[in-house]
Amino acid sequence: MSRIIVGVMGPGENATPDDNELAYELGRAIAKAGWITLTGGRSFGVMDASLKGAAEEGGLTIGILPGDSDKNSSEHAQIKIVTSMGSGRNYISVLSSHVLVVLGMAAGTASEVALALKSRKKIILLNQDEITIRFFKNLGSYNVIVTKTVDETIRSVKDYLSVNQVV
Amino acid sequence: MSRIIVGVMGPGENATPDDNELAYELGRAIAKAGWITLTGGRSFGVMDASLKGAAEEGGLTIGILPGDSDKNSSEHAQIKIVTSMGSGRNYISVLSSHVLVVLGMAAGTASEVALALKSRKKIILLNQDEITIRFFKNLGSYNVIVTKTVDETIRSVKDYLSVNQVV
Amino acid sequence: MSRIIVGVMGPGENATPDDNELAYELGRAIAKAGWITLTGGRSFGVMDASLKGAAEEGGLTIGILPGDSDKNSSEHAQIKIVTSMGSGRNYISVLSSHVLVVLGMAAGTASEVALALKSRKKIILLNQDEITIRFFKNLGSYNVIVTKTVDETIRSVKDYLSVNQVV
Amino acid sequence: MSRIIVGVMGPGENATPDDNELAYELGRAIAKAGWITLTGGRSFGVMDASLKGAAEEGGLTIGILPGDSDKNSSEHAQIKIVTSMGSGRNYISVLSSHVLVVLGMAAGTASEVALALKSRKKIILLNQDEITIRFFKNLGSYNVIVTKTVDETIRSVKDYLSVNQVV
Repeated sequence: MSRIIVGVMGPGENATPDDNELAYELGRAIAKAGWITLTGGRSFGVMDASLKGAAEEGGLTIGILPGDSDKNSSEHAQIKIVTSMGSGRNYISVLSSHVLVVLGMAAGTASEVALALKSRKKIILLNQDEITIRFFKNLGSYNVIVTKTVDETIRSVKDYLSVNQVV
Repeated sequence: MSRIIVGVMGPGENATPDDNELAYELGRAIAKAGWITLTGGRSFGVMDASLKGAAEEGGLTIGILPGDSDKNSSEHAQIKIVTSMGSGRNYISVLSSHVLVVLGMAAGTASEVALALKSRKKIILLNQDEITIRFFKNLGSYNVIVTKTVDETIRSVKDYLSVNQVV
Repeated sequence: MSRIIVGVMGPGENATPDDNELAYELGRAIAKAGWITLTGGRSFGVMDASLKGAAEEGGLTIGILPGDSDKNSSEHAQIKIVTSMGSGRNYISVLSSHVLVVLGMAAGTASEVALALKSRKKIILLNQDEITIRFFKNLGSYNVIVTKTVDETIRSVKDYLSVNQVV
Repeated sequence: MSRIIVGVMGPGENATPDDNELAYELGRAIAKAGWITLTGGRSFGVMDASLKGAAEEGGLTIGILPGDSDKNSSEHAQIKIVTSMGSGRNYISVLSSHVLVVLGMAAGTASEVALALKSRKKIILLNQDEITIRFFKNLGSYNVIVTKTVDETIRSVKDYLSVNQVV
């Protein structure tokens, strides 16, 4: 009865226009697949863009917020979990996601990938560079999937959920 | 666009049959009103009973879980936020709720009421004894509402949301 | 080899001059007994006054800070644990203390007493009123000790540590 | 009046004998310099070895523990901060350290380096491989220092503290 949650991780302030466009398309695709989209819930970058895509496609969206209120959070987060933990919330974002998709890279994003590997979560590195892929594969290659496109990413999530009978 | 969340707080292992029945009715009433029900997400006590009532009425339910996975959580929690924080998650439950309803009393429950008062959240004490009411009113009477029934509780939430134009 | 930590809990902004004086004397007495004093580490109220007393007596002091840096923390905290968790840090303060002494009362303080009861920690209620004592005794009388003076409090801590061979 | 804390980060279960020996030497050197050594406080790997070195040299040691009690923690941690947060405590370890030294690499360690970069903390990468250095320098080269030996590391900490007049 519990719902599938796909976490989308990526840069906030330093997201490129390409990161944001990819995140928006990813959010749409997650919603079309019937899954919930979860991000760090801020009003900019990959967090905001993927929630926007998901919400516009009629999907349910969750923001795991850093502050002690929902001020300045993404208007596309329908469910706002208020943590008052700053970047400490990254671990909650990771643990609450059945699968994580990572696009773009920044320090906060890297902490989420590392915590996901530590927790043996399945991580999809979408459109990442060679250094990033090698660094994280060295830390736990078994749980790392590398994809190039949103379509390939969605197929990987479906395969993972079906093989592991998640939920 | 964000959804209203009503937190329901009360005893887990030490919940009485009356606590659980009241929690179940409260969950149903919250769902009927169109709000999301949020609890600590464990599989027993007020947490479980209120989520069950809400889910059976077709409402959306959230469990803020103490462990580092969703094992042993309430089967009536549709959205599972996994915190790995034990009772440290109580602050997240409080901050994520627009209004809190408290029925029955135990140490964990008392910590949630106190944190809610600290955060200036509106708290409805449902069917509480005189000592409890006096203790919490001494700490911040402005935010404490005392009710006797589920109906009166739902009316109080409606009044609060309408006066404060929450969301 | 690990050191005994006594947590001192009480109001911050709403502390009375009497609360602060009692906290200062308590900090001195904890340091004289050779124990570490731990508080929420802010620069006012019972947190600050007890650390000041302890430090002036040559004791070691710890502040469990709410913010994401040590700005605005008590100058009497020698070891600053920076949590970025706001009131969420209260659970860490409780769990890290071998015994807790509570003087004065406010919402944050009440949350610490409740979390301590939930964690089955020994709590000394110093100079509390009847409502407070009855409320917390209802939640777990076995772990609650009631005292009137600093001397009586220190004797209670010594008895508890010796009977339970803590550390 | 507050004390300088140097965080030591590195693998736990997967630490190599070389990692542990280097950690032990680093702990000794930190203690000799008069600073406090802080780690994740478990009873094995780099956490334990560096605390052991520091304690044997007469230094003060802090463990930021993952569990909800001090069970199974390093016997060389004199001050035990009990978080009940699992790997969520990594952010607290990072924020509480004035400088971080990272030796060996594992998923948890990588999360600490990433959170430190996010928080603009100074990080010393001791004896790391080329992929690791390039990955983290891409995320925030300004705060990353690369060293090969314990001596060089201690000099880097001294330089940083003196230039920035920390504490």
